[in-house]
Amino acid sequence: MSDVDDALEIIKRGADEILVEEELVAKLKSGKPLRIKAGFDPTAPDLHLGHTVLINKLRQFQDLGHEILFLIGDFTAMIGDPTGKSATRPPLTRDQVIENAQSYEHQIYKILDPEKTLVMFNSSWMNAMDSAELIQLAGKHTVARMLERDDFSKRYNSGQSISIHEFLYPLIQGYDSVAMKADIELGGTDQKFNLLVGRQLQEQYGQKPQVVLTMPILEGLDGVQKMSKSLGNYIGIDEPANEMFGKVMSISDDLMWRYFELLSFRPMTEIEGYREAVEKGKNPRDIKFLLGEELVDRFHGAGAGQLAKEEFISRFQKGAMPDEIKEKSVAAVDGGIAIGNLLKEAGLVTSTSEAMRMIKQGAVKIDGERISDPKTVMPTNSLHIYQVGKRRFAKVTVA
Amino acid sequence: MSDVDDALEIIKRGADEILVEEELVAKLKSGKPLRIKAGFDPTAPDLHLGHTVLINKLRQFQDLGHEILFLIGDFTAMIGDPTGKSATRPPLTRDQVIENAQSYEHQIYKILDPEKTLVMFNSSWMNAMDSAELIQLAGKHTVARMLERDDFSKRYNSGQSISIHEFLYPLIQGYDSVAMKADIELGGTDQKFNLLVGRQLQEQYGQKPQVVLTMPILEGLDGVQKMSKSLGNYIGIDEPANEMFGKVMSISDDLMWRYFELLSFRPMTEIEGYREAVEKGKNPRDIKFLLGEELVDRFHGAGAGQLAKEEFISRFQKGAMPDEIKEKSVAAVDGGIAIGNLLKEAGLVTSTSEAMRMIKQGAVKIDGERISDPKTVMPTNSLHIYQVGKRRFAKVTVA
Repeated sequence: MSDVDDALEIIKRGADEILVEEELVAKLKSGKPLRIKAGFDPTAPDLHLGHTVLINKLRQFQDLGHEILFLIGDFTAMIGDPTGKSATRPPLTRDQVIENAQSYEHQIYKILDPEKTLVMFNSSWMNAMDSAELIQLAGKHTVARMLERDDFSKRYNSGQSISIHEFLYPLIQGYDSVAMKADIELGGTDQKFNLLVGRQLQEQYGQKPQVVLTMPILEGLDGVQKMSKSLGNYIGIDEPANEMFGKVMSISDDLMWRYFELLSFRPMTEIEGYREAVEKGKNPRDIKFLLGEELVDRFHGAGAGQLAKEEFISRFQKGAMPDEIKEKSVAAVDGGIAIGNLLKEAGLVTSTSEAMRMIKQGAVKIDGERISDPKTVMPTNSLHIYQVGKRRFAKVTVA
Repeated sequence: MSDVDDALEIIKRGADEILVEEELVAKLKSGKPLRIKAGFDPTAPDLHLGHTVLINKLRQFQDLGHEILFLIGDFTAMIGDPTGKSATRPPLTRDQVIENAQSYEHQIYKILDPEKTLVMFNSSWMNAMDSAELIQLAGKHTVARMLERDDFSKRYNSGQSISIHEFLYPLIQGYDSVAMKADIELGGTDQKFNLLVGRQLQEQYGQKPQVVLTMPILEGLDGVQKMSKSLGNYIGIDEPANEMFGKVMSISDDLMWRYFELLSFRPMTEIEGYREAVEKGKNPRDIKFLLGEELVDRFHGAGAGQLAKEEFISRFQKGAMPDEIKEKSVAAVDGGIAIGNLLKEAGLVTSTSEAMRMIKQGAVKIDGERISDPKTVMPTNSLHIYQVGKRRFAKVTVA
């Protein structure tokens, strides 16, 4: 296999789509370091593993010798919501943008090599653009093509209003690729339309069009919905080691393989080996330990994973935790459910008064941590391992 | 009748629509001089009577004591066509804009009072607008409402492309009203949508919304299609007196009343009197003389109309021109028809060779002017009075 074939295999791992692969091969064959663009929202970043799917791919490009252009799309965020409808989207100040950028750097350099990363702000070229130039830009795309974008077409057809400035944002995002002379742009599958606008605009501005590489959206701990803070089904990259490890341990065995592909830097051949071992009877929990260790090491330093694993095992009183924990789902009322009702509905206690008593006795644990407040309310979409006494376990989703 | 009632009657003469009349009445009642906006295309102006319908209305506002803001929309014209599709719409330079503005002034001051006219350029505020402000502006309107505009909806539904910048132009035109603090905006009926955008934006920018007054599009000499240079059915305001007079005389009697309403400054009561006289048997040609004289006086100075009338009568050899001239239509081939074929098909000669002979003898006239070139080709949509010898007349449209 040539170097290009090797590179291609690494690049394609976990990727959803590459447009156009032949162009990617040609760019790789040129042997020159490529300019890899990825755009990020400038609002306060609090990255979770879902975000790192893309950042991991950037890291792989860095390891292949390419340069990462980490773009913070601050220009439009500093405008705020021009329709005035959303009071929850106030314009960001320059100071906030800088602060958020520093927070990004703090977080992304746990994965990326700062030496091969250029943090850019699109305000640096967009603030210099006058309205005549923006009109020129708007002339390079049609209303019909913009309405082909999934979310626009849905909103238009269902009579929900689309403000005209929303048609300008994909163009600005695309123009960023022109200003940055991007060779490749990475984004989530939900960004495909906008990434293609960048391709088109580069051609119209006389540049070689960027290759578009989309990465899938990572499922959250529930294995169904996308990982997101608001759904509560996430692992934040700044979470304490033990919490991070415990959450990894809570995912299903199926989801584990998905996480291995998208979150681990182990070669795929090695991962295939684990899969075969599990098929032959190895306890998947032990493989999950490897994933948990790798991720905790990444965000908390080498060795932290091993410690978290030991802590996890001791918390669950070595040997006390069954290999298979039953999974339950309980219904939330008004965004959450009281702990007593939860334990009863999950079949861990026979009555809420038993639940209260067990909590008072210190016999109830959530993810191995003892709780003491009988008024605890568990939020919708939360997923934890509950333990009552020594032997009663359940993995409970609040739906 | 109060002053306001008087004013309202003058303002409403010939107007297609007033939105909203109650607001207009309130503005008139304030007694303050109002700011009357009308926007014009900055490309080389060569005004014809069709354009003067609006300018006449501006003049009426001036006579009522209001101030005319004559807006030259140079900003977008200096951008040119950002889609790059139209090679025929190159961007205008600043020098061209200034030259065209001077040409406008030369022409409009034949109708308007320069003392009560302010010529403005929207580049003076639009050049100062940065892209962030333009995005704010774009946020004030929705895609769905923009697609309600007749021409956009037709193009969208028939699959013709609409470039996104085209959605910005009505907003810029509307923003002009904000920048100008217009109290009333005048425009053709085809501009109604854009004028209403101005109303809406003024409200969003905290101003009292302008009253919108639309004037009908004037029919050309054929009485059917709108007056336009490209259709050839127009009377230019810089045309020589005799030509202007002759063209007025060529219109149908029905169209004459329309022209009286929209182009004459005679009071409607007087015009009604003429109509009654014609109904009682007066020759409409003599009434048409009055219209011709008034228009020629307006554009060539007092007394020029009388001279043109005398010249017209003498050209047509006093008494030789019948009261009723038969009307004919002949078919064009490739944009025109040779004079010989035209005369034959109109029944003025029996053969093209007779036509050639008559032309050589100097016996053929077009609008009273002798022609000598037998190769003359008359263009499509032209309408003239042809005369062969002393008695043969026909008013011929080339279709």
